[in-house]
Order: sequence, then C-alpha cells, then structure tokens
Amino acid sequence: MIRTHQAGTLRAAHAEETVVLAGWVARRRDHGGVVFLDLREASGVVQVVVREDDLAHDLRAEYCLRVSGRVRVRPDGNENPEIATGDIEVVADEIEVLSEAAPLPFQLDDAADVAEETRLTYRYLDMRDGATANALRVRSQASYLVHDVLREHDFTNIETPYLTRSTPEGARDFLVPVRLQPGRFYALPQSPQLFKQLLMVGGIERYYQIARCFRDEDFRADRQPEFTQIDVEMSFVDQDDVIAVSEDLVARLWSELLGYDIARPIPRMPFFEAMDRFGSDKPDLRFGQELTELTGYFAQTSFRVFQAPYVGAVVMPGGAEQTRKELDGWQDWAKARGAKGLAYVLVQQDGTLGGPVAKNLSTAERDGLAAAVGATPGDAIFFAAGGRTEAQELLGAARLEIGQRLGLIDTSQWSFVWIVDAPMFAEDGNGGWTPVHHPFTGPKPEWAEKFADDPGNALAYAYDLVCNGSEIAGGSIRIHRWDVQQRVFDVLGIDEQEARSKFGFLLEAFRYGPPPHGGIAFGWDRIVALLAGAGSIRDVIAFPKTASGGDPLTGAPTPITAAQRAEAGMDATPEEDAGTTAGTASATDPGA
Amino acid sequence: MIRTHQAGTLRAAHAEETVVLAGWVARRRDHGGVVFLDLREASGVVQVVVREDDLAHDLRAEYCLRVSGRVRVRPDGNENPEIATGDIEVVADEIEVLSEAAPLPFQLDDAADVAEETRLTYRYLDMRDGATANALRVRSQASYLVHDVLREHDFTNIETPYLTRSTPEGARDFLVPVRLQPGRFYALPQSPQLFKQLLMVGGIERYYQIARCFRDEDFRADRQPEFTQIDVEMSFVDQDDVIAVSEDLVARLWSELLGYDIARPIPRMPFFEAMDRFGSDKPDLRFGQELTELTGYFAQTSFRVFQAPYVGAVVMPGGAEQTRKELDGWQDWAKARGAKGLAYVLVQQDGTLGGPVAKNLSTAERDGLAAAVGATPGDAIFFAAGGRTEAQELLGAARLEIGQRLGLIDTSQWSFVWIVDAPMFAEDGNGGWTPVHHPFTGPKPEWAEKFADDPGNALAYAYDLVCNGSEIAGGSIRIHRWDVQQRVFDVLGIDEQEARSKFGFLLEAFRYGPPPHGGIAFGWDRIVALLAGAGSIRDVIAFPKTASGGDPLTGAPTPITAAQRAEAGMDATPEEDAGTTAGTASATDPGA
Repeated sequence: MIRTHQAGTLRAAHAEETVVLAGWVARRRDHGGVVFLDLREASGVVQVVVREDDLAHDLRAEYCLRVSGRVRVRPDGNENPEIATGDIEVVADEIEVLSEAAPLPFQLDDAADVAEETRLTYRYLDMRDGATANALRVRSQASYLVHDVLREHDFTNIETPYLTRSTPEGARDFLVPVRLQPGRFYALPQSPQLFKQLLMVGGIERYYQIARCFRDEDFRADRQPEFTQIDVEMSFVDQDDVIAVSEDLVARLWSELLGYDIARPIPRMPFFEAMDRFGSDKPDLRFGQELTELTGYFAQTSFRVFQAPYVGAVVMPGGAEQTRKELDGWQDWAKARGAKGLAYVLVQQDGTLGGPVAKNLSTAERDGLAAAVGATPGDAIFFAAGGRTEAQELLGAARLEIGQRLGLIDTSQWSFVWIVDAPMFAEDGNGGWTPVHHPFTGPKPEWAEKFADDPGNALAYAYDLVCNGSEIAGGSIRIHRWDVQQRVFDVLGIDEQEARSKFGFLLEAFRYGPPPHGGIAFGWDRIVALLAGAGSIRDVIAFPKTASGGDPLTGAPTPITAAQRAEAGMDATPEEDAGTTAGTASATDPGA
Repeated sequence: MIRTHQAGTLRAAHAEETVVLAGWVARRRDHGGVVFLDLREASGVVQVVVREDDLAHDLRAEYCLRVSGRVRVRPDGNENPEIATGDIEVVADEIEVLSEAAPLPFQLDDAADVAEETRLTYRYLDMRDGATANALRVRSQASYLVHDVLREHDFTNIETPYLTRSTPEGARDFLVPVRLQPGRFYALPQSPQLFKQLLMVGGIERYYQIARCFRDEDFRADRQPEFTQIDVEMSFVDQDDVIAVSEDLVARLWSELLGYDIARPIPRMPFFEAMDRFGSDKPDLRFGQELTELTGYFAQTSFRVFQAPYVGAVVMPGGAEQTRKELDGWQDWAKARGAKGLAYVLVQQDGTLGGPVAKNLSTAERDGLAAAVGATPGDAIFFAAGGRTEAQELLGAARLEIGQRLGLIDTSQWSFVWIVDAPMFAEDGNGGWTPVHHPFTGPKPEWAEKFADDPGNALAYAYDLVCNGSEIAGGSIRIHRWDVQQRVFDVLGIDEQEARSKFGFLLEAFRYGPPPHGGIAFGWDRIVALLAGAGSIRDVIAFPKTASGGDPLTGAPTPITAAQRAEAGMDATPEEDAGTTAGTASATDPGA
C-alpha cells in the first residue's frame, strides 16, 4: 500500500502518529498562510492542515494526493462532530500529487441536482462521493448476505449460460450473431428459467444464482435492457418451503442493512382479495383508502354508466374541496391511463352530494352512498364501472394517487405481503387464454385435475412478494408431470409442434424423472433500491443505461464498421437451415 | 418439503424411525419377492427394501419416487461400508411415483465413457450423479470462498455491464443489435477491464466481481465463447498488495477444498528466467528436465544449423532407446507446432553420440556435449536453434511432452509460481511493437521514465500466477498518469485519433485525478477444473458449449426468422452515423 492508514479511520488515539494517506481533495479552504484540505477516500474524510503555502498552492478539487504528516488533536473548539475524524487533523509534511484533475463538469456534493445524463457521462465522478457510492456499497453488502443466507440453506450456486437459444417467437430476445457459424445467432436469456428447471431435473435440488437477465423492451422509465435477479429453484418442495427461504432472505437483508425486523410470517393475501380491496396485485398496504364494491348497491340503478358488471369506488378525504381545475385534472389523469374518465361525487359539508354524477342517481342511491363507501362531508368519491379487473385497476391507481397527493403513505414504514392464489390464465382478447405467469406454472393442488375445464377460475400455485407496493419477487411451483403440462398447452392453444419448437429441450428433459420443483426470482435492482433508499434502480447500478438503452459514458450502442459486420457473419445464410426445431434432443417426441 | 429426511443422511441412530424420502432409482436388484432399490438424491444413496412386488414392479432406473417407510439396521453381514448409509436400509410401506423415466440414452454410472456430445445433449442426466454433479458443487463451494476472502479484505462486489460498447477493431467482440436504436450494436465485454479501471477512478478502491466474459474466438479445444473470471482491482496499491490478496484467495481455496496448504509466499520467477529454464512463461515446475542454453557452447561451430542467435537443448532420459519411427514422430510433432523439425543426438551406452546431427559436430563439440546438458548414456538430446523466444518455446513444449510421455510429472503435487518482470512490448513483426499484456499495463518503476527509449527491454509491472503449468491468473499495476499512457501509445503507434476512438472514455476519466491502481483476473473455469480434478473446463461448467460454439442440449445457435431479423434492426442504417467516435465525454480532448 502506498499509504499507512485509511483517512477516515483516524481518531484521537492516533495523535502524534506519523501517517501517510492517499485520497482526493474534497474541499479546500485558505486561511491566510494555512490551507485546510478535506482529504476523501473510501473510508471517509480527514482534515489536512498545510502550513507551507508552496505545498498546497496548486491543489484543486479532486486532485489525487499522497499526504505524509502527523496526526494531532484539533485545538479546542475546532472539533467537527459531523465527521468521524472530527477530533483530529493531519499536519502535512509532504504532499505528492498522484494525479491532477481538470476542472470538474459539476460539483460532486451537488450531484443530486445535476442532470442525470451528465451524471451518467461522468459516472466515475458521480460515484466518488455521496449517494451513488453508498448505494453501490449497500448493493455489495446485500449480495454478501444473499450468499450467506443461501449457503446456510444448502444452496448450490450455479452459473447458467448467457449465450443461449433464441425461440422463434422470442421477439424480445437480444440476438448475437455467431462468427464461427455464419447466419446463426445466440440469444441472451430473459431469465434462467429453463436452465434452472433443467438443473432440477439434473438433481441439483437447491440452486441459486445472482443472474443477469436481458430483455429488449420498449422505452419505459426505470427499465433496463439488462437487469439482475436472484434466481432460486428447489426440488421436493411445496409453496411453504420456497416462501420460508424467501422470508429468511428478505428478513436478513432488512435486519442487517436497515436494522428493521420484518414481522414473520409475512401475511399472505389472495390475489382476488388484493384486487377487491386495493385494485392492485401489488398493493401498497402503508395506507387505507380501500376500494368499496358497489355492484350490488347499484344493481337496480337507472344510471346507465353504473349498469356494469362491476361498480366500485374509492374515497378521497377532503376531495370535495378541490377546484374545478383539479377535478378536471383527474379526468385527464384517467384518460392518460386509457380510461374514459373518472366519475365522482362530492360530499358537501351539509351531507348533500355534488358533482355531475349525483343528479343521475336516485334519492335512495344518493342518501346511502356516503355511508356505503365510508365518506364524510368534504370527501370526494371516485367511481369506476365496467369490467371488474379494468375498473378495479383504475380505482387502485386512483387510490395510490390519492395516497401520494395527500401524503397518506407513511414512508417510514415497511409493508410486506405475499400475493397468492392468482389465476392461472387470463383471457387473451381473442377468445383464448394466455398464462398469467408462464406456461410452466403449476395449478394449485385442488385445481390439478380440473383447471382445463374451468380455465377462467383456475388458480395457480404462484406467489409474489410485494413490498410497499412494488413486486420484489415472484415464483411458483412448476409443473413436473407431462400430462399436466400437455393440458396447460391445450388450454393455451399451443400445439405439439409449437411446444416442441419453443420448449423442446425442456420437454425432452421432463421424460426422465423430473422431480416436483418450484422456485422464485427476486428483482435485485428494485430490492437494492429499496434498501439504499434510492428513487430509481439506475441509482443502484454502477453503469446504468438511459431509457433509450444508451450509455452516455461509453457511447454504447454504436454503429459498426463494414468489416465488423462481415466478420460477425450476420448476413450469411446458415449452412444448413435447421429451421425452427431445437437441438437433437427435442427432435424426438416429447410426449412419447 | 414432501420428504421428512434426506436419504443420504440416515444412520443407525435413525433405526425404527418412520421416514418419507424422495429421490431417484439409481439401481434395482430383484431377489425373489424382495426388491432392493438404491434411492439417490443430492445427499447420497440409501437402500430401500420393497417386500410387496406390486409396489415395485413398475419402477425403472431414474424414476422419481417418494418412499414412506421405516428405517432398520441391516441384518448382520449385509452392511455396505462403501456408502455412508450402509448400516441401515429403509423398509418401504408406500411408494409414490412422482414421475416416470423413459429408457435412458446411457447408463448414468458409465457416463465417463459416453461421447461428450451425448452427455451434453442430456446434461441433466449427466449431472444427476457422479463427476459432473461433484464438479458443480465444488464450483459453488469455491465461489462461496471467493466471496468470503474478498469480503474479509473489504472488497466491494460490483456488477459491470454486459451490454457495452464495441470498439472498431474489436473483431472478437460479440455484437448485439439494438431494436430500439436500429443499426446500432452493443458489444459483449471480453473482460470488465475498462469498467474496473473506471471504478478505481470513481474511488471504489477495492472492487471484485465473478464476471462472465465473452470472446468470439476461433475453434480451440478447451475454449468457451463465454467464460468466467474473478475480476479484482485495487487502488493505492503496489504489486505486493495485489499478490498478497491473490495468495490469500488461492491458499484458502486449496486448503478448504483440498486440504492442501500452499507454501507462502509463492515463489516469484522472472519471465526471462522461466523462458531460459523451462521454455515457457507458464512453467510446470513439478518435474525437472530444464533447458540448457548452448549458444556459447556452439559459438564457434561449423554446423550451419547451430550458427544461430540461440541454441538450446533439453534431455529425454532413455530417449536413445527410441525406435526410428518414434524419432521420426518427434519431427512430425515439431512440424505440427510450426517448427522445421527437432534436431537430436542419441547418447549411446558407450558414450558415443548417434543420430544424424552428431556427424556435423566437431570432436570437441561431441566430447563435451553430454556433460554440458547433463545427459547420460541412453538419453536423447533435443535441440532448437534460431530466435531465442521461438527456440525456447519449442524446447519448452518438448520438455512438457517428454514429461508426459515418461510420466515424470508428479500429478499429486501442486506447484505454484508467480511469473514477474515480463517484457512490456513484443515486436509485432512489422518493425513496430505490440503490448504483451494490454496497453494500460504500467512499466516497472525503474522503467517508468525510460521504457520508450528501449521498448525491447522494458519490463512491465505485471504478474501472472501459474499452477502446474497453467496460467490461472494474470494482472498488472496499471498506468494512471496521462503522460506515461501517452508514451505507451507512442511506442505502440497508436495516434491520438485511434486512442480516442478505442479508449476515449477511459482517457477522459483519467483527466480527473485517477488513483494509482492495479488488479488481477483469475481464470475461474480453469481454477475450478484444477480444484475438482477435472480434465476440461467443460466439466466444471453446467451447460458448456462444444468447440464449435454449439450447445447440443438447446440447439443454440440457431437461424432466426425474417421477422426476428427485421425487428432486431440489424439491417437498418443508424439514424445519425456517429462513426467511430465514443460518447459525449470522449469527444473532448483526453490529453487536455
């Protein structure tokens, strides 16, 4: 080491010791003949006193220095209780400039106010101090804990391939041309799902991996083309086993990194209860304002809008006091979400109802309404009517918006909940069904024999972990019996040809004694953002990409040269067109 | 859990307990009315006794079962000391078939003899038992130790991007078309080198990552298009610091996984000594047969072949007894390596020299030769003459071949050595210089000011760790001063334009107070292969690719459909041709 001590570790006990430090000039203050430098490195900051002006006169912010000097207790009254080294300072004898720094593009201690594009362009400056550096260290500590917890549970850490197979329908796969097999492509995996199931067939029993995943998705805030998940799979288990391991993991993360004890067991809420009460499959339970179903209440209504399969409401406390403009704003808000609008009534101080909807209601409907939804004078009542799911989701979004606008959410609180008993299938809009999770998700035991007869009501053996309204993990018990898998494909309208083409190698593997198994995947970027108190997952990624998938630091992605293009072989016709069939294995009959 | 116990953990102490197990039928033996099943899962094997024939009559190899029964101590004389559960057996009351198995493509206990392509096609069967499963568990334990050791050394685990920037000359980069930016491409990183140096500029000080790397290399045995390295970088350090951490890491791996204590410090050998003595920069020190330099000995020779800048020899004990065919075989061996042949003399039992070269030597040259190279009657002496490096490498390869053919290598031994003081530059064959490591490798301190004046002799501040003749890690202290980096580029003939195009963002970062730093990368697949006693790195990778880059299990890589091609945007002209310049940052003058 070119230093003897870490700057941030010096204390009064080091007084009179001669030390050699190395770090960056965080701040410089000149006091007539004496210069005070804050020397910063990973361990913290220490004040360096430079008496001889010639030693210090060239030193600017972010110069990298090596400082030799003597530790001394600060003169009385000069202590700085805000920093750990505040009782001492280092009187410099010698300063070596290890490297100079050009004028900075922004002041590092103001980084939070700098445009994100600029911070990402100079990410190495952004991470030299403050929130980004802290977030990266939290992420590292968190990953150590993941390894600890899963090792204690006897998991085997296995790396699965990143260069793997594209499926013909995998439109969101990133493709990678293969120079040695011109015209052929690898795909980057959207998740290790198929490989982790193969590992279970291989008898690994308990697998995990901190896995990078790749998804060529559309522009969306807070999405990254590459992201990280804690990928877990277990054999011979039931839902409770996967949940128990998962709770051990999150409990350990929250207790060791935040000193917060998660109450266990984490409550479980059926999917439909979450939708009915909160209008969301990832409800934020840190505040109330639950939805009220009014379908029965308006069963006989003459108001056409409320003659719908579902009518529900959510109350905005004090909402009757909103201006016309604010109330119109809600309509725009609803339209931006794809709804026609957001019907409302205002409960006046005298108990009568205002707003455009009120006059369409019968006297009886008006009289009982406030009580039915728990509104009091001064509140607004927002309604949604239509298909149950759609209407509930609109009310759920309105509830969140109300919670945020009115500051109803206790941000000091942590709310965890498992959402269980989700439906297996959703209508695909063309009279068919699409899987709510993925096609390997098993039915709940009681639905194992009958899901195909009643797909709309069949429940999946799936579980999602929600924290403060964000889904932080999702998993399921998988199908391991061929006949069950076949019936799921039948419901989904996937014929044998298509199944073989998409999942042939997994189906082939399932011919050889697959064990019952299930697993879960944790959204690691999101979890770390929660642990680090970061607003965006970009804040907890060392070198994130912008919403358009670009990296302002490196300039990626770039055009390529003609020579690169030719060499990559992406324009060649593959030697032998294997078409859409999978490898050797899957060419045999998976159902045989 | 659908079982109460792990099969391999049952002992006599469990006698009379009722247990529920789950696992696979590893073997079945019928003994008139009683069937013995070996039930296997991750924890081991246990014998299950099935008395009622109807319980067992359908059970074939690799069926997945759930067995309820009672543990009992085996009858006297029936114990099996070869398995941990050999004192007991489980008498089955009930057997549930969790899933059936089709007839196997190969017998799992003979997997070692099965063609590798077949084993990879059915990798999940290959890993259900034996060497592959063991190798994967060793790899997992090893990775846990990596995290332990580096955590103890205060390292921050940071994930760097896998979707990053292609450099125009990066012909070996895998490219990834970007749908949202048609005509532009990411590249998969060949290593996190540039990012880890950026992290040092960012003040992270101690970074590591178990990083996947991607290299689109030519067909070569034991190469993988994706491979894993333990990537380490440290600030404010010297060579000794990086070496100390590295030795802690390998010492811990070898002691905890193999019970072997590596003698520390691991010896260091200068590069040129390794070349002179062993003809290799990764010498296998488990046996002797060192090279002898004979350049001086033959300084006055009239034999034209030995009138060369370098003449050297290696002795093959007993080699004079080889048949003419065997001796001719050595010529073919040398030619296959690109040499003209391998000159030799045979030391006859009477001390005279045989073979075609002997008659070209003077009497004096003949008389002293055996003593000069340490040969005794019955030995063969192989020669190489020509350029020093080339000739030494040929002799080094011959030495290894001799060691293997004659069984001179003690395979029970571990030999570690650091190769230090390698040259910075090698001649590129066109009168210029090419970096031996990479262009960011620093000069040794004593060469810092003069390397540009004498590139052929300048030494790099680099260190490679060699184990049993394999390079398992390589690293260097990097250049952190702009003026030094500029002079290295000058030697390499990289002009400012090219430097900016290739490394612009790193050079830009180096304007802002880069710290002195250095690091190392461990070839993780190779290390795990050594730890697991595996012959190939493919044996320690869960789903490896064949030499042609294919995965027989999934069928990757595949052709793609026209729709996939169109959507990936690989044929579009980029919106604005940013050409070969890097991002915003690097467009500014890196030398300013």
